[in-house]
Amino acid sequence: MQTLPDWMAAVKFDQQGLVPVIAQDELTGRILMVAWANREALLETARSGHAVYFSRSRQRLWRKGESSGHTQIVKEIRLDCDGDVVLLIVSQIGDIACHTGRQSCFYRQLKQIDGTMQWQSVDPVLKDPDDIYK
Amino acid sequence: MQTLPDWMAAVKFDQQGLVPVIAQDELTGRILMVAWANREALLETARSGHAVYFSRSRQRLWRKGESSGHTQIVKEIRLDCDGDVVLLIVSQIGDIACHTGRQSCFYRQLKQIDGTMQWQSVDPVLKDPDDIYK
Repeated sequence: MQTLPDWMAAVKFDQQGLVPVIAQDELTGRILMVAWANREALLETARSGHAVYFSRSRQRLWRKGESSGHTQIVKEIRLDCDGDVVLLIVSQIGDIACHTGRQSCFYRQLKQIDGTMQWQSVDPVLKDPDDIYK
Repeated sequence: MQTLPDWMAAVKFDQQGLVPVIAQDELTGRILMVAWANREALLETARSGHAVYFSRSRQRLWRKGESSGHTQIVKEIRLDCDGDVVLLIVSQIGDIACHTGRQSCFYRQLKQIDGTMQWQSVDPVLKDPDDIYK
């Protein structure tokens, strides 16, 4: 691990050493996804200009797009008032952030259908995941 | 606690019974804030059409705007692909979501200043917090 820069001190990582990171599309303003970063991931994001997360399931750095090719070029890094959420404004390569082949992971909307509230998929699949991760 | 509706089962609450909730402005697309909800808060949000969170510091329901008047009218409720983050598209009353008197809590941007990376406040204070919480 490299020496941490001063700006990192303003970021409040949780007890697992992680902070939630929101990726927002710079063009459409859509929220693409939410993932997690540890200090190393956030440092690499800032230095490389590409979004790097920490995969909790795989317990390792996750360079977004490493298998899909759908990298995220970071345009802005922002921090919220209490320092515990990071926002990345990104250019989403391929226009697909979600592993389901959709632009955004937030493709389900709560709607009244036949008298009951249900989650409805409201965004199209732009590319078959089998074609993304082959 | 009331009986939980079926749609709630798709939401993955953490071990503390909480899920992170992003509030996004319906007009500007700006991310206003990130807070937490428990089942009760999310249920009240869906039923009332106003954003209700769970305050971790005060350990109670937080009806956004209860002291500031800056309520959030919920236009859409969305859920991400793995069900562990909720997105509210809202109309922000007063155009101020942050307790600092700014539109958004994400007012700090990482910038190169005099050769070093620093967090810079890039958004204006729209109203003095002393005037909001008097």
